[in-house]
Amino acid sequence: MSGAACYAACCDLGGTKALIGLVDEGGRVAGRERYLLGAEREPARIAAELARRFRSLAERVGVPWRAVVAVGVSTAGMLDLAREVIFSNPNMWALQDVPFRRLVAEATGLPVWMEMDAYAAALGEAWQGAGAGANDLVYVVVGTGIGAGILVGGRPYRGWRGTAGEIGHTVIEPDGPACNCGSYGCLEALAAGPAIALRARGAIRQGRPTAIADRAGGEEITAKTVIEAARAGDGVAQEIVEQTARYLGIGLANLIHLLNPEVIVLGGGVIEGGADLLLEPIRRAVARRVGCWVDREGMRIVAAALGQDAGLLGAARLVWQGS
Amino acid sequence: MSGAACYAACCDLGGTKALIGLVDEGGRVAGRERYLLGAEREPARIAAELARRFRSLAERVGVPWRAVVAVGVSTAGMLDLAREVIFSNPNMWALQDVPFRRLVAEATGLPVWMEMDAYAAALGEAWQGAGAGANDLVYVVVGTGIGAGILVGGRPYRGWRGTAGEIGHTVIEPDGPACNCGSYGCLEALAAGPAIALRARGAIRQGRPTAIADRAGGEEITAKTVIEAARAGDGVAQEIVEQTARYLGIGLANLIHLLNPEVIVLGGGVIEGGADLLLEPIRRAVARRVGCWVDREGMRIVAAALGQDAGLLGAARLVWQGS
Repeated sequence: MSGAACYAACCDLGGTKALIGLVDEGGRVAGRERYLLGAEREPARIAAELARRFRSLAERVGVPWRAVVAVGVSTAGMLDLAREVIFSNPNMWALQDVPFRRLVAEATGLPVWMEMDAYAAALGEAWQGAGAGANDLVYVVVGTGIGAGILVGGRPYRGWRGTAGEIGHTVIEPDGPACNCGSYGCLEALAAGPAIALRARGAIRQGRPTAIADRAGGEEITAKTVIEAARAGDGVAQEIVEQTARYLGIGLANLIHLLNPEVIVLGGGVIEGGADLLLEPIRRAVARRVGCWVDREGMRIVAAALGQDAGLLGAARLVWQGS
Repeated sequence: MSGAACYAACCDLGGTKALIGLVDEGGRVAGRERYLLGAEREPARIAAELARRFRSLAERVGVPWRAVVAVGVSTAGMLDLAREVIFSNPNMWALQDVPFRRLVAEATGLPVWMEMDAYAAALGEAWQGAGAGANDLVYVVVGTGIGAGILVGGRPYRGWRGTAGEIGHTVIEPDGPACNCGSYGCLEALAAGPAIALRARGAIRQGRPTAIADRAGGEEITAKTVIEAARAGDGVAQEIVEQTARYLGIGLANLIHLLNPEVIVLGGGVIEGGADLLLEPIRRAVARRVGCWVDREGMRIVAAALGQDAGLLGAARLVWQGS
């Protein structure tokens, strides 16, 4: 590495907002900015605004633009890496089947690496976060949905058509509740944020003694409300959290049996809000399901460490490892 | 490749018997022999007998021993590839923690490649069998147990400690029957040969109208008995076969969601005996669970094509691809 620091201009592009930052080869973030994407979603404009904001961020933090050597993008939605388009993104229909990588390259004049968000977060956590140093790592995001980014030998494992990692649609209860995907009893239908909130609303309607509704104070009950109530000692909320941990534990045990990773990093809103309540019960549920056939010695299940920066650092990792 | 054919001396080593053969670079088997391992299981003697039988087989089929350039071994039980020992093999305790690869190399004077049976079968089927040409292939064996050999980019994917592929212990029914592994409702406890036979014996004890017991004719009821009864139109047997397909379908759907393979090859005694009854119901059960999030177009679930030769050809593939 030469004397002058180089930077990757990185973006974590979500359905409604973006986080951008300048990240050096050591994983240090020289500056970051969050902005809303706005109602206008014309792809070339999204790319142009991104380029403009990269430049103004560099100026603001005193990084000369010539020190920015490449762009890394983490994006919601699935990527068709061969065609370099985003597809099947329910929150980003404007970018559907658009060669977004090329648009960003044209707008910035720089080479661009692009990755799906769960894979980018996996790369970030394996590089600078909770899984630092691990080569066989799975990042599982538990939020509005549940998905995973799988790293094998430090590189994203995508499968034949790029749809690997859909742990949210693995079946946990064959006759369980219907899932958006058309199947039943998927992990996502049992343990994602909306499922947690749904069980709380059901308990309230059944008249069970719980302070969850009071805690919501007239607002919609969310997974966050349930987790906070559980932390405050509410028995019904604690039961829901325990059930959630049990489902997640079965899903992770199945993943361990199939993939035998070194580290599982748990991230996403549900884990960020409730790692203190969820992590140990999840580990117990996994241990109950992972018998003598799988070597658990030293295998770790940990909470994500990078928070909102995971995607940003993963996008930077893409650039610096040149994948 | 020079004019004179080269051969790999290959062995599929099971718990009680071995199949050996001489396989050329094109996958042609010049000669094969099956033998029982006998009661004497001293590891060096097993290796010495193997070397002796390789030589006499070569002589019998007219292959000069100098044309045999390497040995490939497919073995039951788990391998610790770093230590080159077989471990955790309930049927082959005599080979537990023995450096069997080195013993075979010493006995034959040839370089030796060794692989676990499910992985060897996967390599064989991906090379010469039902998955020919596929790089992302999973071979699932459904027999006395259920396991899988995963190929990623044509190479075995083993995971961190080499225990990947344990699909038999993924949980299908969280409160299902106890499994040997200590967990509950594992695929193996629901859909392996012994589970199929167990459900048949249960139906008979309940007095349900079935000809399964008659068909067994006083012998122990096995999965084979049940499959034959189903084929002959026995309603109870058909119900058991349908249930088995449903469980297998859920397990495979979970595998597809996590790994997104191009081809799943189904082998093992249960499939060999009942592919005509099981394959279509399995495909339907998978389709029901694999929704819009996974691209099923062209994804294939097929019965193994190599039968007893899969391990032998996989062992040869190890040698010829030099992995």
